[in-house]
Amino acid sequence: MTKGRLEAFTDAVIAIVMTIMVLDLRPPSGTYGYVFSALGPLVSKLLVYALSFTFLAIYWNNHHHLMQVVERIDGRVLWANMSLLFALSLMPIATAWLGPHWRASGPVLAYGLVLLAAALAYFVLTLQLLRIHAPDSRLAVALGRDWKGRLSAAAYVLAVLLAIVVPLVSIAIYIAIGVVWLVPDRRIERVAANRPAPPR
Amino acid sequence: MTKGRLEAFTDAVIAIVMTIMVLDLRPPSGTYGYVFSALGPLVSKLLVYALSFTFLAIYWNNHHHLMQVVERIDGRVLWANMSLLFALSLMPIATAWLGPHWRASGPVLAYGLVLLAAALAYFVLTLQLLRIHAPDSRLAVALGRDWKGRLSAAAYVLAVLLAIVVPLVSIAIYIAIGVVWLVPDRRIERVAANRPAPPR
Amino acid sequence: MTKGRLEAFTDAVIAIVMTIMVLDLRPPSGTYGYVFSALGPLVSKLLVYALSFTFLAIYWNNHHHLMQVVERIDGRVLWANMSLLFALSLMPIATAWLGPHWRASGPVLAYGLVLLAAALAYFVLTLQLLRIHAPDSRLAVALGRDWKGRLSAAAYVLAVLLAIVVPLVSIAIYIAIGVVWLVPDRRIERVAANRPAPPR
Amino acid sequence: MTKGRLEAFTDAVIAIVMTIMVLDLRPPSGTYGYVFSALGPLVSKLLVYALSFTFLAIYWNNHHHLMQVVERIDGRVLWANMSLLFALSLMPIATAWLGPHWRASGPVLAYGLVLLAAALAYFVLTLQLLRIHAPDSRLAVALGRDWKGRLSAAAYVLAVLLAIVVPLVSIAIYIAIGVVWLVPDRRIERVAANRPAPPR
Repeated sequence: MTKGRLEAFTDAVIAIVMTIMVLDLRPPSGTYGYVFSALGPLVSKLLVYALSFTFLAIYWNNHHHLMQVVERIDGRVLWANMSLLFALSLMPIATAWLGPHWRASGPVLAYGLVLLAAALAYFVLTLQLLRIHAPDSRLAVALGRDWKGRLSAAAYVLAVLLAIVVPLVSIAIYIAIGVVWLVPDRRIERVAANRPAPPR
Repeated sequence: MTKGRLEAFTDAVIAIVMTIMVLDLRPPSGTYGYVFSALGPLVSKLLVYALSFTFLAIYWNNHHHLMQVVERIDGRVLWANMSLLFALSLMPIATAWLGPHWRASGPVLAYGLVLLAAALAYFVLTLQLLRIHAPDSRLAVALGRDWKGRLSAAAYVLAVLLAIVVPLVSIAIYIAIGVVWLVPDRRIERVAANRPAPPR
Repeated sequence: MTKGRLEAFTDAVIAIVMTIMVLDLRPPSGTYGYVFSALGPLVSKLLVYALSFTFLAIYWNNHHHLMQVVERIDGRVLWANMSLLFALSLMPIATAWLGPHWRASGPVLAYGLVLLAAALAYFVLTLQLLRIHAPDSRLAVALGRDWKGRLSAAAYVLAVLLAIVVPLVSIAIYIAIGVVWLVPDRRIERVAANRPAPPR
Repeated sequence: MTKGRLEAFTDAVIAIVMTIMVLDLRPPSGTYGYVFSALGPLVSKLLVYALSFTFLAIYWNNHHHLMQVVERIDGRVLWANMSLLFALSLMPIATAWLGPHWRASGPVLAYGLVLLAAALAYFVLTLQLLRIHAPDSRLAVALGRDWKGRLSAAAYVLAVLLAIVVPLVSIAIYIAIGVVWLVPDRRIERVAANRPAPPR
């Protein structure tokens, strides 16, 4: 089974999910739209869009890095990948809800659930990949114990629970996780760099 | 004629069809949107979206597996593939109708017709491919008599008829077919696995 | 300059244009939507969508065939291709207008203008390709005098003019042109088939 | 790290951004829609759409040319590319606002800011690429001092400032920059042409 078409399909879905979020950013209408200050109400929507765009870019980057050390895929990997794409496809609705209502518990909680679902799907994807790779494969070495992924999932759970009482703290947690992941996975990058010499 | 560009085009269309369905999931609006319970009415829409996403993922998976054993394509294959994409492109409207009206005959019947059209188009695609492959080709061996495909088509016909009187039974049939197909086509996977040694 | 990325980009744009047309097909709403007969008003929209889908599929097929005999591209070819994509990107609005108003002069005329623009852009694309290919190249041999393309353009001009007085005749012309082109370009297919032996 | 998947992802995003702008072009509705003159109000929207389409095509062309002389990429290049895609993803909303309000300061200024952001992101992308290429690499030779890019950025700043008092002048500047860039980057094309012989 080839990983090329899986990558192409994943690219297409992430690209579309990223881009259709922008359909929810509507310009001001009517005469109200004639002054630049009319953009004011758009600001919170734009910031939430930027946050979601960043999360999707992180997933694309990490998927890109992950696939570089993948040697084979099978049917279960395809379905784990589909689960990830399904979770990411819910980003636009979560973003559209959070944009204008970023102080309310409901949208903040829903946004966190979508991020948590994506994190779990990505985790399952790595498990399915590890299942069909040797323990000393470049993939296994690169992933290691994946503390970063596990801590992120725990942080999402915390943020989802906190959203009920202090939604702003949850948003701060989302942003913090985003910043931590902005740096692409150095473990994989290091392993992928010395491609000729496979790690022990 | 190269199959690479056919695959790329099919990937793009399926990815877009999958993703634009999410445009129909709108967040709750107004003050009503400030509590998480407001997501309630969304649940049936979300479940139907998940069902449609699964069907599209099944088609992508099967198409991916099918193309791995395809040796050549021609003009008629291109058009059979286009028919499949046309049928799948109707999924968003069928999904948008079924989402909030999953107990009504009309939407359930329409949804079944779209699934039936896609199943028939996929069947025609395999026929067009068999026409230009040898009877002992890996494609022909992998497809075999395609009982699974034929039974699915028959089940769709049954579900479409039943939708007029008992739409919920039709939905149960759709879900059952989806579950059956969740497992990628093992026949092809088995044949595709031993690539160096062509069967028989 | 590589033609691979040009093909990938063209695929993506055509796939998206094809698919977003479906966003204009809205399911019946309210209680009116509970009976299947409510689909009635959708029929003309669906037929026009099928016609537009067919035209876009024809362009993709012909582009696919054309690119198979292309040996090189340059900046002007890129821009001619962009013009084609621009013309095709207007199909969704022309389709959305024609769908419910297929007996009216305005939408029929506008639809014809978009088809004419696409035909002219495709013609310019072939001219730009011929400019950088030898007169005995497979591309030049395959395109020949392109009577089919020239007659189509003339038929579009006729249909656009007739739309003012007898729009239904114009629609008949559009359908006729579509049927004529449904068969992929045999000239190119014939030339592309015997790839090893370049035509004199 | 491979540049192929970066190109594929960039293609997908630019293709989608280009195409979803067309969703904002709505056909005239009601009986008003039955005469062709009803297209009148659409004209300014269509012209602004054509301008935005051209800018996106220019970015695709330049990105295509740039990537041809790129030898390697890294994490920072990926993120610089993501910033470019983020800036370009704001084109649809800027276009939707400018379309019907092209004489007003607000939309003209906002449109210029999006163009400026894209220009800066592209500039950062080239800086990140130069960082990991040798001073005598084909990339470095091809980019040179990039006077064209620097002058464009300066022109955008000027246009954004002028938009407050004379928005029509700003639009003229946007069009002028578009025309200047319509010609693909000859520096890179020249260097990319003689691929076998690396410069100096």
